[in-house]
Amino acid sequence: MSRRVGADPFPQTGGVYCRTVNNSEQIVDGDRRALARAITIAESTRADHRAQAVALLDSVGRNDSAFRIGITGTPGVGKSTFIEAFGLHLVRDLGLRVAVLAVDPSSSRTGGSILGDKTRMTELARHPNAFIRPTASGGTLGGVARRTREVIRLVEAARYDVVLVETVGVGQSEIAVANLTDAFVLLVAPAGGDELQGVKRGIMELADLIIVNKCDGALEAQARSTLADYASALGLMRPSSPTWTPVAMAASAHTGMGIDASWVTLQAMRTARHGEQATRRSAQESAALWSDVNDRVADALRADQRVLAIEAEVRAGSLSASRAAESILSIIGLSPSE
Amino acid sequence: MSRRVGADPFPQTGGVYCRTVNNSEQIVDGDRRALARAITIAESTRADHRAQAVALLDSVGRNDSAFRIGITGTPGVGKSTFIEAFGLHLVRDLGLRVAVLAVDPSSSRTGGSILGDKTRMTELARHPNAFIRPTASGGTLGGVARRTREVIRLVEAARYDVVLVETVGVGQSEIAVANLTDAFVLLVAPAGGDELQGVKRGIMELADLIIVNKCDGALEAQARSTLADYASALGLMRPSSPTWTPVAMAASAHTGMGIDASWVTLQAMRTARHGEQATRRSAQESAALWSDVNDRVADALRADQRVLAIEAEVRAGSLSASRAAESILSIIGLSPSE
Repeated sequence: MSRRVGADPFPQTGGVYCRTVNNSEQIVDGDRRALARAITIAESTRADHRAQAVALLDSVGRNDSAFRIGITGTPGVGKSTFIEAFGLHLVRDLGLRVAVLAVDPSSSRTGGSILGDKTRMTELARHPNAFIRPTASGGTLGGVARRTREVIRLVEAARYDVVLVETVGVGQSEIAVANLTDAFVLLVAPAGGDELQGVKRGIMELADLIIVNKCDGALEAQARSTLADYASALGLMRPSSPTWTPVAMAASAHTGMGIDASWVTLQAMRTARHGEQATRRSAQESAALWSDVNDRVADALRADQRVLAIEAEVRAGSLSASRAAESILSIIGLSPSE
Repeated sequence: MSRRVGADPFPQTGGVYCRTVNNSEQIVDGDRRALARAITIAESTRADHRAQAVALLDSVGRNDSAFRIGITGTPGVGKSTFIEAFGLHLVRDLGLRVAVLAVDPSSSRTGGSILGDKTRMTELARHPNAFIRPTASGGTLGGVARRTREVIRLVEAARYDVVLVETVGVGQSEIAVANLTDAFVLLVAPAGGDELQGVKRGIMELADLIIVNKCDGALEAQARSTLADYASALGLMRPSSPTWTPVAMAASAHTGMGIDASWVTLQAMRTARHGEQATRRSAQESAALWSDVNDRVADALRADQRVLAIEAEVRAGSLSASRAAESILSIIGLSPSE
């Protein structure tokens, strides 16, 4: 576990140089640069980096004490300002260590990202007890989910108390993030008569807490009305957990109204769910394993010319999907049975 | 392709005896008993039956001319009476050949099923141009989806013009059925003020057509009001297709009101989507192939003691999901890379 200074440096995807791979001790000791390097390796798609990331996860072990909170919302609802106000409340007023991870499967590292820009949360980014990191990167949703899970594990090993996982309110990334976290927050903005229009119903069903942001100044009355609409919509839905009924509340990142109440509510939820926490995490890990295996088997098969030739026949209608599935299963040595 | 009469009969899962497996000619010629036997074989989980089913699908080929309509709705909305009225309109008034398949992943063949009971649609069941069959059977959703796809292929080979695939309005089976069909109909009943409560939002998003059934007698006013609510809810949703905006309409299986209009609407949708039909079917077949392969790889792995031992370590927290995924991939001889 010693730091092998002097080993050949090699360029990382993000332009960072890595002098050591076996830096689990520094991570656990709170070395932010070691943590940043480890995350870069976990995010890399290079085969040697993958192997290093897996070894690193082995050596840091599993720390289940952090509170993982997923936060989603469409662009424009004020996610950055809310997360900055919320994060500053946690680090300044409550003395907690907070990591913010931003997930955006649609963006690529080189193409830039609407998320994860440290300049969005300048005050929080400067605080010694806060760690902000985009995990945005191109690739399959499964790959993004796996990388996010690994990055969460790494920041947990670095003993952050709260991990905020931010994602955009579009597409399938919310489901992936909800499956990685203990609580899921949907952030919305005050809106007019058709206020629920922009929100996919499926995302609302994932939410443990809906926060109507920007409840201040000229928008306050509209925010209150939007809050009533969401509260009413939540009342029509079946709660996904026996121990927690989702609630809606208002907040303002600008005035600070509702920021402390958001944390109190999330803590109440965490307490209510305490008994199911270990089971939930175990189930999440197991689901992540199967999801990983599925994705990687599919990736391997989609890269196989024999498999692609079979798929082309299915698309053309000259081979049944059932026959094709059997052929593909036999390629990987699995007997074709149900 | 000749009928091998005299081969050893063997008992089927459903108590049917099968004297021939290579009955593709009889199926194409419209022999209903041959079709029923073929479906029984396709539904069986026995390895030899699986092989026979795959061979049969090969020999009947692919007939893409049928119109596949998925119909869902929670118990009590009158699915059976609607399907009987709708099916009788098609066979009697329009001279079409209609197959009705009922899918219920939650029921088992031996445990009985709320679906697929021929006694529910006595008049339609007696008509020579109608074929009614439950495909209800226990097992994984993936297995049910595969069997349903195969059964659809078989009835299409038997040259039915319209295939109605009925499923219950709960759970994940709607998504599976929507992915197998050309049009998806959500049947709902007149309801009170909280009328959208029972319908999962995700199911509404799948619907190309929402029909408020039981629009007759004392319920008519309530049905009209429910119709307005659904029309309004549809207006808030993004259409899933560029060529068709989902609509809501009222019908009564009892008086016949709206039955012909339902068919006219579905035909209009089919015409609007005509240009994308071939692409859609190809994409559905390809998706079915990958889904099959995923399910069967997962089934094979979950039956492997080495894999289960690895999963137990992940659940216990003593092994990372990433390391575990690599171990499992190497068990099936796939190199652990992204």
